[in-house]
Amino acid sequence: MFITQELLRKKRDGQELSREELAWFVAGITADTIPDYQVAAMLMAIYFRGMSQAELAAWADAMLRSGDILDLGHIRRPKVDKHSTGGVGDKISLPLAPAVAACGAAVPMVSGRGLGHTGGTLDKLESIPGFRVDLSAERFASQVDELGACLIGQTERIAPADRRLYALRDVTATVESVPLIASSIMSKKLAEGIDALVLDCKVGRGAFMKTADDARTLAGAIQVIGRAAGVPVTCVLSDMNAPIGETIGNALEVAESVAILRGEGPADTRELVVALGAEMLALAGIADGATDGERRIAASLDDGTALAIFRRMVKAQGGDPRVCDDPAAILPRAGAERTVAAETDGVITDIFADDLGLAGLCLGAGRTRKEDAVDPAVGIRLHHRVGDRVVRGEALATLHENGRGAERAHSLVTNAFVITTDGVPAPPPSRILEVIRS
Amino acid sequence: MFITQELLRKKRDGQELSREELAWFVAGITADTIPDYQVAAMLMAIYFRGMSQAELAAWADAMLRSGDILDLGHIRRPKVDKHSTGGVGDKISLPLAPAVAACGAAVPMVSGRGLGHTGGTLDKLESIPGFRVDLSAERFASQVDELGACLIGQTERIAPADRRLYALRDVTATVESVPLIASSIMSKKLAEGIDALVLDCKVGRGAFMKTADDARTLAGAIQVIGRAAGVPVTCVLSDMNAPIGETIGNALEVAESVAILRGEGPADTRELVVALGAEMLALAGIADGATDGERRIAASLDDGTALAIFRRMVKAQGGDPRVCDDPAAILPRAGAERTVAAETDGVITDIFADDLGLAGLCLGAGRTRKEDAVDPAVGIRLHHRVGDRVVRGEALATLHENGRGAERAHSLVTNAFVITTDGVPAPPPSRILEVIRS
Repeated sequence: MFITQELLRKKRDGQELSREELAWFVAGITADTIPDYQVAAMLMAIYFRGMSQAELAAWADAMLRSGDILDLGHIRRPKVDKHSTGGVGDKISLPLAPAVAACGAAVPMVSGRGLGHTGGTLDKLESIPGFRVDLSAERFASQVDELGACLIGQTERIAPADRRLYALRDVTATVESVPLIASSIMSKKLAEGIDALVLDCKVGRGAFMKTADDARTLAGAIQVIGRAAGVPVTCVLSDMNAPIGETIGNALEVAESVAILRGEGPADTRELVVALGAEMLALAGIADGATDGERRIAASLDDGTALAIFRRMVKAQGGDPRVCDDPAAILPRAGAERTVAAETDGVITDIFADDLGLAGLCLGAGRTRKEDAVDPAVGIRLHHRVGDRVVRGEALATLHENGRGAERAHSLVTNAFVITTDGVPAPPPSRILEVIRS
Repeated sequence: MFITQELLRKKRDGQELSREELAWFVAGITADTIPDYQVAAMLMAIYFRGMSQAELAAWADAMLRSGDILDLGHIRRPKVDKHSTGGVGDKISLPLAPAVAACGAAVPMVSGRGLGHTGGTLDKLESIPGFRVDLSAERFASQVDELGACLIGQTERIAPADRRLYALRDVTATVESVPLIASSIMSKKLAEGIDALVLDCKVGRGAFMKTADDARTLAGAIQVIGRAAGVPVTCVLSDMNAPIGETIGNALEVAESVAILRGEGPADTRELVVALGAEMLALAGIADGATDGERRIAASLDDGTALAIFRRMVKAQGGDPRVCDDPAAILPRAGAERTVAAETDGVITDIFADDLGLAGLCLGAGRTRKEDAVDPAVGIRLHHRVGDRVVRGEALATLHENGRGAERAHSLVTNAFVITTDGVPAPPPSRILEVIRS
């Protein structure tokens, strides 16, 4: 039993809180015995003072223990997951989980829904008719065991302290605190009972972290928590200035994911799947380093084994497996298409991911509030990438719309393309900026 | 209409909030439309970021305007008040208000109750049988007009924003923030409709401000608010390491106050009354500088005019005016007395005011929670001051007790006296450390 004000005072004055004090505070958050105003004051004090490594580990551990931890101890395969800090057009989890499973690891992936301009894996999966993400813990565990991969949503019983904290951070301007972000991510990921984790830390205009330095700081905090929990974490810093791949919007991104699983699809999407999957296999001890991992993941995409896992996964989770054969026939389609044309001749030197995310939001592909519904069919398909030469009037992108927000989206997408008259065409650079292994 | 999170973010990031934004936020505090957790987050952000002079003035002004402002415009005399940041044995307001009134100024004094180890003026006055501090605003104004002085308690209609803020600061470890302290004091004092203010800023062990630097910072913030409101403020920094005068406890302090009003009493209590009163008269334009003011205040104590005002004030507020003639006969007396004796020969080199305040609290003279009742009769009388030579077994102090906390109080008082064997006897130094005129 501690005195809440005294803990607030200690944190405020930059003193280190003990493991016991932090555990008591987080238990008070979970049990709702510490009122909102004291939690809010603590969040703001943490925003200013940060956390020591010991505090961070203890805080994340207490948050993890506020809820259930999945027991996947009976699964023999190494259990490894990936978490992305969120990007525009980020459908990586969909091809990645079956590819890694096809290579012999187990991927028990608990995902979130989209909020704001970045999309959510669950929303994408649910655009497959019949697909269910609300499996019981038992069914989740048995599917991970059988297929090597299962993608579900977070339950109320995973890290309840994080749910209360997240709601408060949102309204108290304390979202942007590295220890709070890191502990929020890790309390949920560690609850999956994983052996190792790869963090895809997005950097740039369309990401939460705008600079590589910020991303490195977050990666460091995540690794501190992982180390204390005995879960090694590899952090991949990847470029999130231009949108990933050629689609934004739920059904469109599923179709792109299927293409990747067929060994096709955009180069950058495949690059991310291969690089992140390679690190997962290396951590799992399946691949002998990243290069060997890349070879194995690429092979699983090219030889159909990853697609076969995905097909079984879709079927097991109630979805229509024919999405693997003819996505266009199975997935919902928007009522209308509208072209965004280049207004000038030149070379595309930039595509603003944040504006494209916002355009998707306008069309109804995402949500601004948690309770909003998403339209699975709408979105944007890009016909050109950074480095392409285009001529005036040529189609840059197609909006898939259902009569909502198309005007604003059209204007956002038009302005998102930076076309430079004297630019030099070039292949787009690698998405992978840096790999930080623990 | 502003967005609360955006104001939190601005303050958090060290940007200046506009007058309109601050007024909106304080209005939301008053109307209870901004929830506690957002107010708490703002308080913690203010704790870390402080306030610019413009923010401070706007915030204090909004707090002032959250409630009623007394209209004393019909009173011809200059209206001047004193506020003390709180000390142990601080009964200065009781003799000061009538002395300043006797010299021609009007003192419309709205006071507080004691909390923690420092006493409250209202509690002291209420130890006079019949004395009432809950007069209506109209009676208050007419008494100030007729007698030149009235001492009442804060009403619910004065600075209601401060009441909500104060309660939240207490539980969110944001009490010790200079702009929050300064605006809390000034929102209440400016509501008195005064022309000028003297702040007695206590410094030392028994005070809120432990160092002169901290006190100067507070004085600066108070003067910023005063300047913006057109109310000049003189700040007197006074020593609060040893208790003031020779009594701690409500009735005992009233008796000491009466002695001062008779031209008697302890030298340091009189010094404070004279010095603070002199600054009030100088600000009011009645005295030609502090030296002339000191002469006038001293004369009012020595010639009985101050006591005459006090007598009329006690009578007007329902109290027994015979307290002015024979305090011992009128004031409540504790059931038992207990001597604290010197445990060694030597010179008293220190008396810890905070421990004596705590001893008074143990005996029942103060309150640890707002809802506690105080015992007017109990307290401590000191027989020796810093600089006195004492011999082993000699009485240092007498506890006036009513069967509560005497053991602990005895031990606290014993240990509060620092007796040094090879110390050199000396008259106690001046209480006045520094005067900061605006």
